[in-house]
Amino acid sequence: MGLTLKSTPAEDGFRMPAEFEPHAGCWMAWPERPDNWRLGAKPAQEAYAAVAAAIAESEPVTMAVSDAQFENCRALLPAEVRVVEISSDDAWIRDHGPTFVIGAGGRRGVDWHFNAWGGTDGGLYFPWDRDERVAAKVLEIEGDDRYRAPIVLEGGAIHVDGEGTVLTTEECLLNPNRNPDLSKEQIERVLLEYLGAEKVLWLGAGVFEDETDGHVDNLACFAAPGKVLLTWSDDEDDPQHAISHDARERLEAATDARGRSLEVVFLPSPGPLHISAEEAEGVDTGEDTQPRRAGDRLAASYVNFYLGNSGIVMPLLDPRHDEEAAAILRRTFPDREVVGVPAREILLGGGNIHCITQQVPAVPAPD
Amino acid sequence: MGLTLKSTPAEDGFRMPAEFEPHAGCWMAWPERPDNWRLGAKPAQEAYAAVAAAIAESEPVTMAVSDAQFENCRALLPAEVRVVEISSDDAWIRDHGPTFVIGAGGRRGVDWHFNAWGGTDGGLYFPWDRDERVAAKVLEIEGDDRYRAPIVLEGGAIHVDGEGTVLTTEECLLNPNRNPDLSKEQIERVLLEYLGAEKVLWLGAGVFEDETDGHVDNLACFAAPGKVLLTWSDDEDDPQHAISHDARERLEAATDARGRSLEVVFLPSPGPLHISAEEAEGVDTGEDTQPRRAGDRLAASYVNFYLGNSGIVMPLLDPRHDEEAAAILRRTFPDREVVGVPAREILLGGGNIHCITQQVPAVPAPD
Repeated sequence: MGLTLKSTPAEDGFRMPAEFEPHAGCWMAWPERPDNWRLGAKPAQEAYAAVAAAIAESEPVTMAVSDAQFENCRALLPAEVRVVEISSDDAWIRDHGPTFVIGAGGRRGVDWHFNAWGGTDGGLYFPWDRDERVAAKVLEIEGDDRYRAPIVLEGGAIHVDGEGTVLTTEECLLNPNRNPDLSKEQIERVLLEYLGAEKVLWLGAGVFEDETDGHVDNLACFAAPGKVLLTWSDDEDDPQHAISHDARERLEAATDARGRSLEVVFLPSPGPLHISAEEAEGVDTGEDTQPRRAGDRLAASYVNFYLGNSGIVMPLLDPRHDEEAAAILRRTFPDREVVGVPAREILLGGGNIHCITQQVPAVPAPD
Repeated sequence: MGLTLKSTPAEDGFRMPAEFEPHAGCWMAWPERPDNWRLGAKPAQEAYAAVAAAIAESEPVTMAVSDAQFENCRALLPAEVRVVEISSDDAWIRDHGPTFVIGAGGRRGVDWHFNAWGGTDGGLYFPWDRDERVAAKVLEIEGDDRYRAPIVLEGGAIHVDGEGTVLTTEECLLNPNRNPDLSKEQIERVLLEYLGAEKVLWLGAGVFEDETDGHVDNLACFAAPGKVLLTWSDDEDDPQHAISHDARERLEAATDARGRSLEVVFLPSPGPLHISAEEAEGVDTGEDTQPRRAGDRLAASYVNFYLGNSGIVMPLLDPRHDEEAAAILRRTFPDREVVGVPAREILLGGGNIHCITQQVPAVPAPD
């Protein structure tokens, strides 16, 4: 605890487990900033509270919150959710929180560098210094030692199958606003070293208009080793069509770290959905934050769900597709309950349920 | 966890254990405000770090710290000290933190109301809203349910023997700047109810010029059931002489909750000590904070030590008396190591080692 290790997870025999492996709990961070969340973040807070309550049915949940919002947050959450003060610049713990790795008898955290999805070259706000401290603070409370990874990366930019394979996108990881001095091969090496993995599968672009520069966790995820869920569009006029088809081709042509071909399961795309004038008006104007304009397309996707121990917590985004998406998830995860939470307010802030959560894997038994 | 109980500790069979009973750990809070701590709190931070390191030899230590000081605090503390973000208005967790109580198989926390040692009528700073939230935040992290006590009280204003007896002072608890609408009997009732105790022993005044309005933890403490350590002065010209003699008379005339007479052990008073001009100059001027003036007497006392599982961490305050005080503490606690830490910088801020610590009792085995 409190220790920053000089070694790497791969050197120490640690690996990032898949999200479908057992969890000890889940972290979230409370939304607050009025220049990203409409109406003083009150509708978003209600949505976050509903997500926390749904995940708490599956595993223990901790909510990180600023001092200013501590009492309000505590009052809005069920008593079984632990509430702790951790300052942040916004509420995306998948991206500014730690990535946990496990090894014989232990758990540690990887603390990536964070630059608010692109720094001063297309990032979403300035400054982001409080975000940068979140991962270390989470690790202190979990009592886990820390690796400080030498690259800019957000947790939402990667998925793993827990058996050596990493899934990511070129749009994000090769974006010059993240690690401009590193080649694709150098980035791969760091990923494999800090995730304890053996092979990176590269998709191209993320979901259309995704302001994270195409995080994979909004596009595709592992449902099991050898099985990938992919957001899909049959509408040839929608730019998402070409993106999803390209991802499908890459996935179907690939083999994973164990040499398996991948089964691809399609989830329908919601919408297209757009910000309404009323929604845009509720957001404060900030010179250094991403504007929220009426008519802007929202990067909505059902892939952006949380995979808990006993439940899938999925975003409800579009009555025309919610039930179809839920049915596919129920078939894909027959041992888990699929729980839908109204999530448009989270989507309006720039992400969804996977982006606002971070699983803490269970500590494996000693060898 | 996260639950505020409607009952009281006494109703639930819970009691505050004595400080000499087994601990699960110890909390502290990091000094920072430049209008109380000289030179930007750097000398005080060094002293707090030394106290934390000394207590960490005895039991696990957690340091609460603001976001702004997180990285600096983490860098100055040994890796085994857990560092967590908790905002506060100053660094006296004995007084703004929870008082822990234990019962069959469980531990809970009492969250007293806090008004910065006197509110707008002689309190030491304004505002104190962040202090008011500290206890609840500590309890969230400890996973302990919370009692919200209906009076203003600081943890430093009470000591218990763990066997039904509470020791306190009239100067503090009957001060109209704490609970002006309650009689002495009403305050006694609340104390007994929330500490799970049966008898209150009232001392009169606290240490001379103690800005807390005479906290007992700077004047006297239980070393064991039936045994009290008292700060002492043989100098008839020192106002502390009469205070200590009055306390001795009251203690020697009293019996505790079990009907025992009390043995009183004297600890010499340091000094008298006063703030130097150089020390006073290093403190920022704040309109709403207690001024630090050259020549002001410091309320120095060796009673203000921490009683850890395996060690006594005592303040070193005056080379003319440090060794004598240490020798008395060694005789009083023959099974514990007595460790001295230079503590003048803590004293300059208005208290000492007991004031800046809060023990977390071990959870007793289920009945």
